[in-house]
Amino acid sequence: MAEEFVTEITKKSEDFSEWYVQIVRRAELADYSPLKGCMVIRPYGFTIWENIQDALNRRLKETGHVNAYFPLFIPESFLAREAEHVKGFAPQVAWVTQGGDEILEERWAVRPTSEAIIGYMYAKWVRSWRDLPILINQWCNIVRWEKVTRLFLRTTEFLWQEGHTLHRVHEEALEEVLRILEIYRDLVENDLAIPVITGKKSPSEKFAGALDTYALEALMPDGKALQCGTSHDLGQNFSRAFEISFLDSDGEQKYAWSTSWGVSTRLIGGLIMVHGDDSGLIIPPKIAPHQVVIVPIFYGEEQRAVIAKAHELKEMLQKSGIRVKVDDRDEYTPGWKFSEWELRGVPLRLEIGPRDLASGEAVLVRRDSREKVKTSWNALPQRTSELLESVQRSLFERAKNYREANTRTSESFEEFKNIIEEKRGFILSPWCGSTSCEDEIKAQTTATIRCLSEEEPGDKKCLVCGQKARHLAYFAKSY
Amino acid sequence: MAEEFVTEITKKSEDFSEWYVQIVRRAELADYSPLKGCMVIRPYGFTIWENIQDALNRRLKETGHVNAYFPLFIPESFLAREAEHVKGFAPQVAWVTQGGDEILEERWAVRPTSEAIIGYMYAKWVRSWRDLPILINQWCNIVRWEKVTRLFLRTTEFLWQEGHTLHRVHEEALEEVLRILEIYRDLVENDLAIPVITGKKSPSEKFAGALDTYALEALMPDGKALQCGTSHDLGQNFSRAFEISFLDSDGEQKYAWSTSWGVSTRLIGGLIMVHGDDSGLIIPPKIAPHQVVIVPIFYGEEQRAVIAKAHELKEMLQKSGIRVKVDDRDEYTPGWKFSEWELRGVPLRLEIGPRDLASGEAVLVRRDSREKVKTSWNALPQRTSELLESVQRSLFERAKNYREANTRTSESFEEFKNIIEEKRGFILSPWCGSTSCEDEIKAQTTATIRCLSEEEPGDKKCLVCGQKARHLAYFAKSY
Repeated sequence: MAEEFVTEITKKSEDFSEWYVQIVRRAELADYSPLKGCMVIRPYGFTIWENIQDALNRRLKETGHVNAYFPLFIPESFLAREAEHVKGFAPQVAWVTQGGDEILEERWAVRPTSEAIIGYMYAKWVRSWRDLPILINQWCNIVRWEKVTRLFLRTTEFLWQEGHTLHRVHEEALEEVLRILEIYRDLVENDLAIPVITGKKSPSEKFAGALDTYALEALMPDGKALQCGTSHDLGQNFSRAFEISFLDSDGEQKYAWSTSWGVSTRLIGGLIMVHGDDSGLIIPPKIAPHQVVIVPIFYGEEQRAVIAKAHELKEMLQKSGIRVKVDDRDEYTPGWKFSEWELRGVPLRLEIGPRDLASGEAVLVRRDSREKVKTSWNALPQRTSELLESVQRSLFERAKNYREANTRTSESFEEFKNIIEEKRGFILSPWCGSTSCEDEIKAQTTATIRCLSEEEPGDKKCLVCGQKARHLAYFAKSY
Repeated sequence: MAEEFVTEITKKSEDFSEWYVQIVRRAELADYSPLKGCMVIRPYGFTIWENIQDALNRRLKETGHVNAYFPLFIPESFLAREAEHVKGFAPQVAWVTQGGDEILEERWAVRPTSEAIIGYMYAKWVRSWRDLPILINQWCNIVRWEKVTRLFLRTTEFLWQEGHTLHRVHEEALEEVLRILEIYRDLVENDLAIPVITGKKSPSEKFAGALDTYALEALMPDGKALQCGTSHDLGQNFSRAFEISFLDSDGEQKYAWSTSWGVSTRLIGGLIMVHGDDSGLIIPPKIAPHQVVIVPIFYGEEQRAVIAKAHELKEMLQKSGIRVKVDDRDEYTPGWKFSEWELRGVPLRLEIGPRDLASGEAVLVRRDSREKVKTSWNALPQRTSELLESVQRSLFERAKNYREANTRTSESFEEFKNIIEEKRGFILSPWCGSTSCEDEIKAQTTATIRCLSEEEPGDKKCLVCGQKARHLAYFAKSY
């Protein structure tokens, strides 16, 4: 039964897209809904999101941010106040045109992002420099009309957080943008175990209405990049559009400087792709719903004693702050349960059987390496904590090694095209800064600039036009 | 300055509605948005909601419930599958008719409640009796078109949680309905310090599509009842509409029994009304964003030492798990700060001045009674915890005394009408069970049945028709 279960899954190495969809649905992370583009996040997937929320909320609150809630809807005329903004988002908006039996005079957009409605409120609230900075975040649902559905990665409705801050001077706003970028990097690398590169976007890839967008980009096992979060320097664009001004201490009325930034449930898609293997998911311990699953092994009359001990060990581990589940169902064999919890990506399995009752031991099995570690009950909490840390570290290292092995430099467009064709991955190449060269690369390879490197290009020449390079840029195909 | 600040607020006793709106806005709990019926929950109000969420999530998780997320939208045809359900909700639905440049063939409702979309998904997921029970909850936004806006109490968009469970037999579903009712009562009475009566609704007041609705009802200071939460026994109505069936252990295919239940941000409106006074809010300690505000009192050169000590005491209190804020702004006087934090309802104020530095003492002031308690620094954490518990208890007792003083019994319709006219409050009266008598009472008094008492009516006669009473019912005007 166990064997059969495992072989039912498409191999990651054979058909990555099909493997991804199967894992998401079989592990009960998410499911398709009857609404085009809208998904359901099932309890197991949602617990991962709750753990990400906790991890990010902690970091945001430590840095002085507070949560709030703004309306789901945005009047059409508000979206239009910032010219770039409406151009960028209008094609993807879901429109409410009727409420009860009332036909609306002005259509309401279901928020595709909340700069416009938040900007309007900020203009009402801010009077003096003493009211600044404003550091507000909101967790909410977002709707952007999509033609295709990719669970967690691209859906019409998704969940995210969006921070919206106001500052007295530009320098302070830019500090905030970079502070958040660093918080995101810390979250994604240390809790989700996904290595990222960070940097500024090229003008063509920035947020509609921003001065500059900074992004986190991770490399997926199919060699494509996944944008994992963005932090925008909005300059005074939205402050001018919404009249957000304040009386400064020098007696002058000034426009505030604003930022916005967000990460979404897309992160869950990233961690599935990066860490999973042919047997299923591997969830990084720090955000795993269950860090340890205890599978009691029993036949006939030993059942009661083994199950009792399993629950005793669970309580012992829980006291050390470890999240534990006991799978004591009697309609499944231990072998079936091993496969099931491997599929669902629990980082550690604890096996306990009749012989262990006599010896006072149990066996811990790592999901990532399948290494088995026999341990005494007394040493169990410490040994488990150590192994969870080790799994967390190993997942990150493995992903980082892959990323490094798949990050190449190229100064020749021919070579660049070959790499994209045959190997994909990140390519760090010199770029003159013109949109036409960027477009040419995209047209010939579908690769785009994921972000700009901080490294200086020196005397290097643009990949396409051969003019002096202004940047070294990370290129890749992307999700 | 402090005096002026206080007198700016309308007195609760003079104009309750105006007082309510002023408090909500001045304490920065919430604000109106430019969208009709939609409010903004500001950080201070949202923190109360986060604390309510934590308190309820803990109770729900302890009883085996898990969180998930379902789509914001519901196809029109889904709403229509349960006849009573669509009749009840369609008049209040906001409709999405366009996505991007695509006109939808079928309109999408912005969820007014999620039975229909969740029912559809449950039908896909449930196969066997082993899949039951399903105990899923979701925290989300809800839209129901409203003509008037009352911040927190009645808005087009609001936040809530909605539980949706499936069971094998009706008895188990009913146990769940009552288990949740008890969890809500425990939350509202012990954390929000609002006393409630609980019981079954009359058929005319039940949820559209339910067999039975159970509710929590609290009495507001204007003598009107506020429904604080509902728990519905849906029978097999939605299971039949959405084909949610399972193979039972006896080999037969059966419809599941379902429940749903919810509380919303309306609870925040309840606690503002119940606990506030002429000086502003009083937030029950268990859910207060700040349980203690420390106001350092300083003039000239003492400033640094007093502020340093204030932060030291803050850390001392935080180590005991107490939520503390230090207000060390130097642009406001201590008197102004006292008024400000009274307005914002912080349960305890800690005053520390230069003389206290020498004596090693500080003064705690209760928000509810204004009682002052001098305490040594050493005793501060324990004394503070005791006082917080005492404030929590006193708020509940005060509200309960009010509720009891305003709950009357009446067996005469004339007397009933006088009470509603002159005193309002709850009236426990015998009722024959007919909708016509219920309607008659409503037509003459605007009072409705808030819930049925479990007490037997004995030989009592219906208030209106004089026939034998089937129930004793709690009547009141309501929000």
